[in-house]
Amino acid sequence: MPQEHGSNQCHAREMLDRVGDKWSVYVIHVLVNAGTVRFNELRSRVDGISQRMLTVTLRGLERDGLVVRTVFPEVPPRVEYALTPLGSTLDQLVCGLVTWSGAHLPEVDAARAAYDVRYGRPT
Amino acid sequence: MPQEHGSNQCHAREMLDRVGDKWSVYVIHVLVNAGTVRFNELRSRVDGISQRMLTVTLRGLERDGLVVRTVFPEVPPRVEYALTPLGSTLDQLVCGLVTWSGAHLPEVDAARAAYDVRYGRPT
Repeated sequence: MPQEHGSNQCHAREMLDRVGDKWSVYVIHVLVNAGTVRFNELRSRVDGISQRMLTVTLRGLERDGLVVRTVFPEVPPRVEYALTPLGSTLDQLVCGLVTWSGAHLPEVDAARAAYDVRYGRPT
Repeated sequence: MPQEHGSNQCHAREMLDRVGDKWSVYVIHVLVNAGTVRFNELRSRVDGISQRMLTVTLRGLERDGLVVRTVFPEVPPRVEYALTPLGSTLDQLVCGLVTWSGAHLPEVDAARAAYDVRYGRPT
């Protein structure tokens, strides 16, 4: 049987860690919709994300070449974030994930409730 | 500014934890391609996943109503896994994620190398 997720795909898996990370998905989703955004704007648009987690998420996305960070030499310095052309190729997938999650939530909630009645709530 | 990822979407975010999890993506991807699969088949097709992690992943997917587990009363018992109709609605998104990750890996690797030269490899 073929190992379609064998060792030659372990890099793709590493990539999935980023693309699949929920905070990355939300940050990319905001950038898809808003274009260029400053750090504090981004933070206010992704409710619940800590300053530290947003910093870590943005650094990872920048390292992956998905987000570009531009520093304007003003006082105080202005720092803006936007998707790179590579990051923009994720727009449909990311919007699809967010839309799917919102649209199918009632079904998932119902399935979870039924499962928990049958097997007990997982710890 | 609207909080498009505000508190009314925190359940969607919980959903993204599952859909975005790399092991869940790979398990769903195998089930999309293979249809009905037994535990050990699944394990051999997702190289690198531990028995424990596969068990936890399948339980989460079953609880979310994305995967159905069928036990056949044989000796030894046969247990098969397949996508539910709800799980099947993820097929394009999941295949899209896997395809994207494979296709854009060289660009991501190049971006990471350039970032690490500039800023040092993140710890």
